[in-house]
Amino acid sequence: MSKRNFSIGIDYGTNSVRGVVVDVADGREVVSAVFNYRRGENGIILDKSHVHVAKQSPLDYIDGFENVVEQCLKAARQAENVTPEQIVGIGIDTTGSTPIPVNREALPLAMVPGFKDNINAQAWLWKDHSSSKEAQAITELAQRIRPEYLAKCGGVYSSEWFFSKILHCLNIDEDVFDAAYSWIELADFVPAYICGINDVTQVKRGICAAGHKAMFNEQWGGLPDKEFLSQLHPKLAELRDRLFDKTYAADETAGYLSESYRQKFGFSKRIPVAVGGFDAHFGAVGAGVEKGVLVKIIGTSTCDITVSPVENNVDDIPGVCGIVNESVLPDYYGIEAGQSAVGDILNWFVDKVCARDADYHNVLTEEADKLQPGESGLLALDWNNGNRTILVDVELTGLLIGQTLQTTQAEIYRALIESTAFGALAIIERFEEYGVEISRVVNCGGIANKNSMFMQIYADIIGKPMEIAGSLETCALGSAIFGAAVAGSAAGGYDSVEEARKNMFAKSKKVYYPSEKNQAVYRKLYSLYRTLHDSFGVRNHQENLFHVMKELLQIKKKNVQ
Amino acid sequence: MSKRNFSIGIDYGTNSVRGVVVDVADGREVVSAVFNYRRGENGIILDKSHVHVAKQSPLDYIDGFENVVEQCLKAARQAENVTPEQIVGIGIDTTGSTPIPVNREALPLAMVPGFKDNINAQAWLWKDHSSSKEAQAITELAQRIRPEYLAKCGGVYSSEWFFSKILHCLNIDEDVFDAAYSWIELADFVPAYICGINDVTQVKRGICAAGHKAMFNEQWGGLPDKEFLSQLHPKLAELRDRLFDKTYAADETAGYLSESYRQKFGFSKRIPVAVGGFDAHFGAVGAGVEKGVLVKIIGTSTCDITVSPVENNVDDIPGVCGIVNESVLPDYYGIEAGQSAVGDILNWFVDKVCARDADYHNVLTEEADKLQPGESGLLALDWNNGNRTILVDVELTGLLIGQTLQTTQAEIYRALIESTAFGALAIIERFEEYGVEISRVVNCGGIANKNSMFMQIYADIIGKPMEIAGSLETCALGSAIFGAAVAGSAAGGYDSVEEARKNMFAKSKKVYYPSEKNQAVYRKLYSLYRTLHDSFGVRNHQENLFHVMKELLQIKKKNVQ
Repeated sequence: MSKRNFSIGIDYGTNSVRGVVVDVADGREVVSAVFNYRRGENGIILDKSHVHVAKQSPLDYIDGFENVVEQCLKAARQAENVTPEQIVGIGIDTTGSTPIPVNREALPLAMVPGFKDNINAQAWLWKDHSSSKEAQAITELAQRIRPEYLAKCGGVYSSEWFFSKILHCLNIDEDVFDAAYSWIELADFVPAYICGINDVTQVKRGICAAGHKAMFNEQWGGLPDKEFLSQLHPKLAELRDRLFDKTYAADETAGYLSESYRQKFGFSKRIPVAVGGFDAHFGAVGAGVEKGVLVKIIGTSTCDITVSPVENNVDDIPGVCGIVNESVLPDYYGIEAGQSAVGDILNWFVDKVCARDADYHNVLTEEADKLQPGESGLLALDWNNGNRTILVDVELTGLLIGQTLQTTQAEIYRALIESTAFGALAIIERFEEYGVEISRVVNCGGIANKNSMFMQIYADIIGKPMEIAGSLETCALGSAIFGAAVAGSAAGGYDSVEEARKNMFAKSKKVYYPSEKNQAVYRKLYSLYRTLHDSFGVRNHQENLFHVMKELLQIKKKNVQ
Repeated sequence: MSKRNFSIGIDYGTNSVRGVVVDVADGREVVSAVFNYRRGENGIILDKSHVHVAKQSPLDYIDGFENVVEQCLKAARQAENVTPEQIVGIGIDTTGSTPIPVNREALPLAMVPGFKDNINAQAWLWKDHSSSKEAQAITELAQRIRPEYLAKCGGVYSSEWFFSKILHCLNIDEDVFDAAYSWIELADFVPAYICGINDVTQVKRGICAAGHKAMFNEQWGGLPDKEFLSQLHPKLAELRDRLFDKTYAADETAGYLSESYRQKFGFSKRIPVAVGGFDAHFGAVGAGVEKGVLVKIIGTSTCDITVSPVENNVDDIPGVCGIVNESVLPDYYGIEAGQSAVGDILNWFVDKVCARDADYHNVLTEEADKLQPGESGLLALDWNNGNRTILVDVELTGLLIGQTLQTTQAEIYRALIESTAFGALAIIERFEEYGVEISRVVNCGGIANKNSMFMQIYADIIGKPMEIAGSLETCALGSAIFGAAVAGSAAGGYDSVEEARKNMFAKSKKVYYPSEKNQAVYRKLYSLYRTLHDSFGVRNHQENLFHVMKELLQIKKKNVQ
């Protein structure tokens, strides 16, 4: 029997970090380990007087890395007698955009004397929404003088993103801004740190974070130009020289595990670490993204990821969050879209409207499952948290139409699920209108794995088979795939991402097929959904709505059991 | 001290009949009595295989009359030593349209051998909705050849009304139809029966029922013409000769209490009985309706009644259920409008959406009362049961817009209340557009008396003081007013309805005044309500809706406490 080889994938989430040890031959997960961040509340440092603030301690990232790798190695030895010699590489994925102010040595300011207790010197977690004014200023300036910047990120620059946060730091805490030699995304920081890179100019920046969140594009020479940045703030233009002008895809090696970590974990040879990327993107790779495959990560919100071969030259797709060359796979455009609330809408309904605890999802699901499509006469817009794709508008809200005096909780619950499926279909249609065909949909996340009614509704509404990803940890698996790809075949890994991917991604374990009968009903409902969608969501759109309630009643009448 | 005089008012409701003894001098209620119908379920005879069927036994009407008069006389004697000699007259109001098939002697078929157990020979209670096809046929025919018939009843002939029910009886039970010499409204039957009138041609038909429900109008010579009726069914045209060609206002005497009842109750002199009318109309009189005063009876649905002097010559008001000369007060047009669900929408929300019992209204009211107008960012259309006035369209449904992930039960509850107030304002605006000014609004019914938040919202949205009627039994009081009016002053009553009304109606006991600050917010919300109202409810209406969610968010932002 030939020597078995393993790769470690590490996934930095919002409240914890997870590590997996994966068999390089087939991507099978051997063991996994979790470390919950210790600082702040569930790992998030809050500011009681500013509700939008959400920071994280870089120390938690370092502690987390050490802890999960140790746990993983120990567990893998116990489970399958895996030795450190059999580990060929490490891959890292993280939340984002989560920029960290660092000194010239690439050390977070939060670890430098004088700034340890300064909240603005910590990592600015993706969900920190305190920079909305800056995001608006960036959007407005780009609309005026650099519309091309926005075209790649869906038309609106978000408060969650790199430059919004840096500019906000400059506006509220100039000391931190001045002390920061540069800023590094979490996805770039971890690989650099664990490889012992102590010169910020040597940190390899991933194209994933740079392209999707920092307006980086080779078309216009990398980061936004100085004229643009100086109109936001002169100091931001000066900072540009200390950021980066080159990016890397995740098939590149960020470096090799530092000597001290190598000794600590007992690796006898050098261990390559892949360039880092975002969780959703690496998760898509773990779930088997390729041309024609859309990976949906369905959680409180959703992230939709697909790829399109570079030679197809995808134009900008209006309303799609990000189209970035090689952000997911080498030689492909990475295309990212998303819905700003899916599970969150159902949680809202159970928690705030029904005023019940989370178990009530089961009660409602059981009742809603008995209903026929169209039977409730209800239709909803899935905009309780705005619309990310394809309208890119946070100033949209929910809508429910078709209520009678008999309308039930379960009917509304089902209508809300349907509304999110209609929103998902709108995204796929937009992809396909712009030449990105989707032939398969692979779904990840808790809802996809637990709620078969939900997935059947998605199949019936989207009109394509809905596959369930073969792993619950596709993000960490994706990282492990990149870890194996940077190892090279000589060291027991693979010589390309493509080879690693094909052998290691999690094959779908279940498929929901659309029912023709249900599809027919949902096509009518989707047409009404689009009528409402465009009427309330598209500027200058105008159409007659007198028929909407009447058609819903007709559909209801026809589909009562 | 001069002799005190009293009048008896009797109010036939859906499940029971109520009698009151009222002081003629000032309308003060001396005693009251209730009799619950005994046949069927809570007095309603149902048909399990036809859910829309709702009949009532005429025997319950007779038993009810005898029972409440006996109770009233006994209680009045005990309470204030009132003797039968002090009773000057009787007035009767009932539900409607509740037609009864009768023989030539004006006796209900249900009391004639051979038909006693036939459900179609009973009284066809107002809420019997089995005649919807016939209502549609009548509406369509009238639209085609007699549009003037519809103009007086809001554009749509209802399944609840006189001819729909008679035609349905003809369609499903020709034996009953053939055996019926004529049909009498409950409001006409009771006065005739208690006066011992045993010739159907001698029954005085009230203008209230005839004008609002049987398309009776002097303009076109009374009832719908034979040509019209014959196109519905030749036998319906034949029936016309056996119906009626003259109607009376309630200031007329229907007759005098029969000898047998006079003896039974111990009246030594003759007791006049006023021509009967509908509960809502007589209730309006009890609550003080007059020129410029709108009386709202707020229950599961609402009925809005006002009057306009005959010399003002009110044109047809589009979308208003009924405009009938003298149907409420002599020398005035009676104008009736209504909302098809008000309390029912709140009951629906508590029962079906919150899945709680009725006590939960108190919880939600308390929470909703803490909210500022506009704070929720929500807006609803009050159409869960269609729209009676001003759109006259049963094929409309509810709508809720503005939901975020933070929207609460209490916010929705308040938005639903507000939606019914916007609907109420739309009715008043329609009245005023057509020259019927409303300077005061008097509110009756359980919600008006119990829920001060509800009434304050109505004051703020409608922008007029909301008065609460001084009696909980305005219908029975209205009947007693007519009882006193037909008695004449020589017998201890009054010589005109106007005199009786002025002295006896229940003066409002409480007033809610609009707050200027709240009015300003609600004016903006009402403008958005009308945008949605017209977009979904008015054929061929088209306007841009892109601003709606955005304005709601703006209003929300400005009004958060």
